[in-house]
Amino acid sequence: MHRVKVRVVEDALDANNTIARANRDDFDRHDIRVVNLMSAPGAGKTTLLERVLRDLGDVRAGVLEGDVQGSYDADRLASLHVPVTQLNTDPGFGGECHLDANMVRSALPEIPLHDLDLLVIENVGNLVCPAEFRVGEDARVMVSSVTEGEDKPLKYPLMFRTCELVVINKIDLLPHLDFDMERFLHALDAVHPGVARMHVSARTGEGVEAFRDWLLQVRVPA
Amino acid sequence: MHRVKVRVVEDALDANNTIARANRDDFDRHDIRVVNLMSAPGAGKTTLLERVLRDLGDVRAGVLEGDVQGSYDADRLASLHVPVTQLNTDPGFGGECHLDANMVRSALPEIPLHDLDLLVIENVGNLVCPAEFRVGEDARVMVSSVTEGEDKPLKYPLMFRTCELVVINKIDLLPHLDFDMERFLHALDAVHPGVARMHVSARTGEGVEAFRDWLLQVRVPA
Repeated sequence: MHRVKVRVVEDALDANNTIARANRDDFDRHDIRVVNLMSAPGAGKTTLLERVLRDLGDVRAGVLEGDVQGSYDADRLASLHVPVTQLNTDPGFGGECHLDANMVRSALPEIPLHDLDLLVIENVGNLVCPAEFRVGEDARVMVSSVTEGEDKPLKYPLMFRTCELVVINKIDLLPHLDFDMERFLHALDAVHPGVARMHVSARTGEGVEAFRDWLLQVRVPA
Repeated sequence: MHRVKVRVVEDALDANNTIARANRDDFDRHDIRVVNLMSAPGAGKTTLLERVLRDLGDVRAGVLEGDVQGSYDADRLASLHVPVTQLNTDPGFGGECHLDANMVRSALPEIPLHDLDLLVIENVGNLVCPAEFRVGEDARVMVSSVTEGEDKPLKYPLMFRTCELVVINKIDLLPHLDFDMERFLHALDAVHPGVARMHVSARTGEGVEAFRDWLLQVRVPA
């Protein structure tokens, strides 16, 4: 019985990877770079996008907004005049806690792929399951707020291990927290040695320019 | 095919509820009150427990600590000299993002039920799936940090709807945030009208006494 169960799980991941490759082929056909943006709830993904999407020069960006339900983040981004597509996961089992490749695939017909150079997929706020599902992205960014504490890389290692960039957000609050940055960076390097990291305040704008430059560099592969 | 899938999900929830009732019977047999403590990652569940478990008078409390992996929170609570049982979810599919009734049941032999009046189950940090699985608890508490923003009840309604108490934590940071408490409470009342709520700073201790009194009242049913 146990072996059957494991096999089912592997099949599910295989199916996800197969569909992620199909997504990847479609993105390549349209010469689009795709970033999967992940974090815990309330870490500041949408505020970061509000800041950075204002100022991408001639790069045409769009957003695929993943939420359990509602369109609160998509509404916030609407004022930026970039194409935003809402993807709700609530037809699933009480609301899926992550996006998978098939959910993203189901949204592709609604995304103006011909008119984009960069697509940011804002995943559901969760530090566990989103890390398990590739969706066809070029790069994964996770936003970790300093208000969440220094231990998060150790407690959610897969999330921190499978991303290309860690945005350490809400640094404007550091004077008011007991957060020990050295301890956080030590934990981060324990699970993902040397991963790129940036210190940002999406609220004040500090460090956002570096994130913008990083996004633009994803767009044009070396 | 679609109908078969829905049926499997219902069966899984049925099985969970069956096992949750078995847990409940065991807790009742030992006259233990059980609280399921839930939140997003880093909202302050463990810090709140560190504060409140110091000062429960003659009530004998224990903790079941749910984490994807590691024992960081259990280690923090060890100094309080209450029984702490670690339950890791990582044998599951890349690490389960929640506790279910069967996971809790598997831990019962490790918990000194004869010596407890109150068991706090600290769930995995996640605002989606933990809300879907009853584990045999008397009451559900969710901790919502003001650093996460005012929109969380609207974005994760099931979590806010299925709890008996919302602890609004980190209020010491309010002077440094753009958080609009009225907007948060309006969102909370939209998804769970009139649910009990407390304003707390686990860091400074403000409001912790009220939470302690609430926990003690759960212990002795009316």
